[in-house]
Amino acid sequence: MAIRLYDLCGSNNRRFSPYCWRVRLALAHKGLDHETVPLLFTEIPDVLGDHGGRVPVLDDGGTRVADSFAIAEYLEATYPDRPSLFGGAAGVTMARFVEGFANTVVLAGIAPLIVADVADRVDDTDRTYFVESREKRFGKALAEVQAGRDDAVTGFRKRLDPLRWALRQVPFLGGDGPMMADYILFGSFQWARVASPFALLDADDAVAAWLDRCLSLHGGLGRSESAADA
Amino acid sequence: MAIRLYDLCGSNNRRFSPYCWRVRLALAHKGLDHETVPLLFTEIPDVLGDHGGRVPVLDDGGTRVADSFAIAEYLEATYPDRPSLFGGAAGVTMARFVEGFANTVVLAGIAPLIVADVADRVDDTDRTYFVESREKRFGKALAEVQAGRDDAVTGFRKRLDPLRWALRQVPFLGGDGPMMADYILFGSFQWARVASPFALLDADDAVAAWLDRCLSLHGGLGRSESAADA
Repeated sequence: MAIRLYDLCGSNNRRFSPYCWRVRLALAHKGLDHETVPLLFTEIPDVLGDHGGRVPVLDDGGTRVADSFAIAEYLEATYPDRPSLFGGAAGVTMARFVEGFANTVVLAGIAPLIVADVADRVDDTDRTYFVESREKRFGKALAEVQAGRDDAVTGFRKRLDPLRWALRQVPFLGGDGPMMADYILFGSFQWARVASPFALLDADDAVAAWLDRCLSLHGGLGRSESAADA
Repeated sequence: MAIRLYDLCGSNNRRFSPYCWRVRLALAHKGLDHETVPLLFTEIPDVLGDHGGRVPVLDDGGTRVADSFAIAEYLEATYPDRPSLFGGAAGVTMARFVEGFANTVVLAGIAPLIVADVADRVDDTDRTYFVESREKRFGKALAEVQAGRDDAVTGFRKRLDPLRWALRQVPFLGGDGPMMADYILFGSFQWARVASPFALLDADDAVAAWLDRCLSLHGGLGRSESAADA
């Protein structure tokens, strides 16, 4: 039975979930054919309610796994003869640290810079849910959250220094080639690329060069999803 | 010939260099006997000028290696039968990311919180050099830099979230046991512990619990250096 990945979609079948992109690259890394099942935010609880109501959820011949990191660990354990996502046990806990950075610094840093743009690109069916839940989270209107981002982005860029540091001598966090740590971070930037036209990175930033390399991986999988139009 | 580590010292032979502590734990991890050679800031150029004037410098039977990360890589390559510091090639580039976090977030975040305290604990011979170089770096008097730290520390603590994330399920970044990534971060906190009485972490912080575990490693090597008195 084919591998199926339950994915999130916005308007025009736009795939922007940072967590789902982590898994899509991981599946490509393992060379595993799969199909994605696009779901709206408001469809997820009905379809996948038994998995906490969140995507990604992987269905591998009837075995269901939720949570992007757990899925990567499942793929590593289940397909050990395919290229490794972690490079051994030490790589798993190191990737957890990168996950912490991706979630608490990168995603948390990007969200206030693009959240109103994201709202413009969710499906009409989802808009009320999305706007109300995010306004509750931020405590103000989304346009207000995003206001002043031309200045705020400077602080965000500065907080990417650990990534720049790691990329001084190698093209990927995985070294000569990408590993799960790269995919975890890639997902965050892909979210911003697909859901907002805002220029998150300076063109001459080493992080932008790394992102460009990530977009070209596995036959240009990341690039197959269009960047958001202004 | 014995392994010799050129180390930094303050007043009363206090060892506070964050970079040297990384190497001291790495040597202990490898089970390698060694002696440390304490140097004042202002002695380093004369003694080690050919190595960029910075410590740590390792001398292993006449082979000299500078830079804490390069030393760890040297130890891993030279003593492959001893416990691994990196857990394989993937672990090296992941540790580089942790180094980036340690240097650009942790050390850079701690410095303005404790720099005047550090100045109080360098050797008298070094004080003018230390104060002048740090005042030039910060662009103001060290007491001013440190002022308001009771508020500023809140932001610093928040920026440790990636570390908290990684430690949710394992006691060390290395997993069940410590690896170089732990030692790299440990050095930053040990610097603060030895050079300043300021309470950098909340007592109930998972990072504080991890630090306590690190202090107990290798026969309590880290704890063998006293915490700064108020």
